[in-house]
Amino acid sequence: MSANASSPKGLGLSAKARRTGQPPISYLMAVVVANPKLINLAAGFVDPLTLPVEPVRQITQNLLADTGRGRAALQYDTTQGLAGLRRAAVEHLEKLDGKSAAELGISERDLVITTGSQQALYLIGDVLIDPGDIVITANPCYFVFTGTLASLGAKVLTVPMDEQGMDVEAVDRLLARLAEQGLLEKVKLIYTTSYYQNPTGLTLSLPRRSRLLEIAKTFSGKRRIIVLEDAAYRELRYDGPALPSIKSFDPQNQYTVLTQTFSKPFAPGLKTGYTAMPADLLEAVMHQKGNHDFGSSNLAQHIALEAMLSGAYERQARLLCDSYRRKRDAMLEALQRHMPSSAGIGWTRPAGGLYVWVTWPEAIDTSRGGRLFESCIDRGVIYVPGDYCFQPDEKGRVPKNHMRLSFGQVSAEQIEPGVQRLAQAAASCLATSNQQPATSL
Amino acid sequence: MSANASSPKGLGLSAKARRTGQPPISYLMAVVVANPKLINLAAGFVDPLTLPVEPVRQITQNLLADTGRGRAALQYDTTQGLAGLRRAAVEHLEKLDGKSAAELGISERDLVITTGSQQALYLIGDVLIDPGDIVITANPCYFVFTGTLASLGAKVLTVPMDEQGMDVEAVDRLLARLAEQGLLEKVKLIYTTSYYQNPTGLTLSLPRRSRLLEIAKTFSGKRRIIVLEDAAYRELRYDGPALPSIKSFDPQNQYTVLTQTFSKPFAPGLKTGYTAMPADLLEAVMHQKGNHDFGSSNLAQHIALEAMLSGAYERQARLLCDSYRRKRDAMLEALQRHMPSSAGIGWTRPAGGLYVWVTWPEAIDTSRGGRLFESCIDRGVIYVPGDYCFQPDEKGRVPKNHMRLSFGQVSAEQIEPGVQRLAQAAASCLATSNQQPATSL
Repeated sequence: MSANASSPKGLGLSAKARRTGQPPISYLMAVVVANPKLINLAAGFVDPLTLPVEPVRQITQNLLADTGRGRAALQYDTTQGLAGLRRAAVEHLEKLDGKSAAELGISERDLVITTGSQQALYLIGDVLIDPGDIVITANPCYFVFTGTLASLGAKVLTVPMDEQGMDVEAVDRLLARLAEQGLLEKVKLIYTTSYYQNPTGLTLSLPRRSRLLEIAKTFSGKRRIIVLEDAAYRELRYDGPALPSIKSFDPQNQYTVLTQTFSKPFAPGLKTGYTAMPADLLEAVMHQKGNHDFGSSNLAQHIALEAMLSGAYERQARLLCDSYRRKRDAMLEALQRHMPSSAGIGWTRPAGGLYVWVTWPEAIDTSRGGRLFESCIDRGVIYVPGDYCFQPDEKGRVPKNHMRLSFGQVSAEQIEPGVQRLAQAAASCLATSNQQPATSL
Repeated sequence: MSANASSPKGLGLSAKARRTGQPPISYLMAVVVANPKLINLAAGFVDPLTLPVEPVRQITQNLLADTGRGRAALQYDTTQGLAGLRRAAVEHLEKLDGKSAAELGISERDLVITTGSQQALYLIGDVLIDPGDIVITANPCYFVFTGTLASLGAKVLTVPMDEQGMDVEAVDRLLARLAEQGLLEKVKLIYTTSYYQNPTGLTLSLPRRSRLLEIAKTFSGKRRIIVLEDAAYRELRYDGPALPSIKSFDPQNQYTVLTQTFSKPFAPGLKTGYTAMPADLLEAVMHQKGNHDFGSSNLAQHIALEAMLSGAYERQARLLCDSYRRKRDAMLEALQRHMPSSAGIGWTRPAGGLYVWVTWPEAIDTSRGGRLFESCIDRGVIYVPGDYCFQPDEKGRVPKNHMRLSFGQVSAEQIEPGVQRLAQAAASCLATSNQQPATSL
């Protein structure tokens, strides 16, 4: 047999497929599977113990004991999604933003139901971005979406973050620079996780919300620059004010997209998200979604709707806030107790969400090739290396002295030992790095 | 206020979005909504009366009464989908094809679970097709997928169909012509709905199955040409032989994709499909799906799995076959009884699926601008104009003397009156068109 006959021939992959690699998180998941005893401070999963098993059992019983509703739930629905769920979602946004749908400039016609909010992020990217187009994000940023943007061929330009979230004045300066370079028409989106950001836990402050919208409007030339507001963690609020969405400052519904989900405040297994957006963008998204799947799981949508109508959703969201608040407090206390007292170590104190962001002295390399990562695995704890979340600077470099810790999936009792192991590993690395300059003298 | 300030600015849509129009079926759906009393022979929906409401109630009850399983179902799962469901799907394919997984060359690692089989079709197009690439289909063809291909920028080349399904020798000749033109590397896919095709109801005959695979292999140069087998209707078999899949002739799992779904043989509301494909294609599809949604609804997957394990799936598929067989027979009898006896009128007699394809004399224009369509709406019946399902020839023309009738959603009692109204409308159009040449003399 010739080599040609025995070796399989290749595939003619599309340019997009060739741009799309394995997500970096796959490596961490493989490490977790290979080391099942690790205390997992890396996972973005939610807490299994608080999942609403009994409420969803009751919801499905009610839904499917009624033959008419059961048939509707098991049939196809529309590409846009269940009208009742879109109406319930609008009412929910009215409560969260403290404004009427009319004041928000939206109705159920302006929403689409998707397979989690990730599908909405994807579809919006798909209908707006050609290779070479520009998206502005914070640095660090939610890495699944920056991976999606890279796959679409977008150029991701970044601005820094501080305690008030994305530095919107830096967005203003960046857009001014792009305007000078004649590149403004390439700018399609400004992406922000406006509540308890993944990975930092930081929230965009109130003054910066309206200001960011104003900046997007100012630099919109013939074509609008859209602010894409990812509010996945919005309802996991443990303290601090309930801030209005950026969309709530856009009563004409022209410049802002607001995407929310049932995954974080209720149950990821439904994989159901809802997104409000300008009418012309919605039209393009719907055409695209018609090709993707012509509608997400309808049964999951009926369950989500019944959860909202029965009050189960609100009860679950409250329960989750109480539970995660305790876990966040446990993590912050453990960090306070166990972290080395060296200069240059700090962490965020998030008012919601699932993440704490730890910054180390530059001598500490948190990346997966570095000593700390290996030492943590040896001691039985895993985190997300911060470099996964950064876009490279002009020289291709990313900071390697950060990490994302999650108190989402890990059990309350494992938080302190997990943080303690991490701190011990770091103390040992710090001690060695302090010795190194001495030995090299 | 200046015109500039009051008129909204445009959106910078991507090239793909600009290629993606409203699906043609939207018009028909709008007509149905506006005329709720129409007998709907157009809808691709399944029969609401046979949806498995009580079985799914029992399944969810069992699943969610067990806290451990319930938590698993409400958590995230992987991008590839629930491993247990992929294993059950492989066992199911073993039964359908009468071969072991080893003989089929697949294991659960070669399957991906998607949001209906449409998402699998989309993802495969997305990772293989760049604008200008070629896909070969039958003419007529499933119009949602040809719409997807157009959106991806593919050039769709077609071959005719006959009673044995897609004319595979015409595929051979077409590929030989493309080879002469040096275009073979552009050919990415040969798409076929191999069982009870939408829209014709025709099935690819047994000899043509292995032959099509052989042709794809023969013309695969450095890169493979993939046969994409859409088997959505496979299990809705009313009589005739249970044919093996094209994939069953590809024991190395290199040239064929086989996509199946729970939507047609169980319930569309789960929106859960499964697809077996070559390992290198699966890798690319998984990376892409990671960006699309990183996994379809996990609760729906757990329900689908429990349906298979409990036997509910098999019982439901049998029940559907009995019910749809009666409806198919009713439609064929009504056509026999009511259709005008003019020459040039014919229709398919499908052994499964949901569709009958009617061919009229060329004097009849079935398109939505034609008199027959209007006359049918007036008489209270609607069908899918056949031109929706054709790709244009070199002169941009499509045949306008066909229609797709579905016995899927319509109730058994409405089939005969629906066909009768249609036949009366057609007889009236035929009478007028016979007069027209006389008046124009």
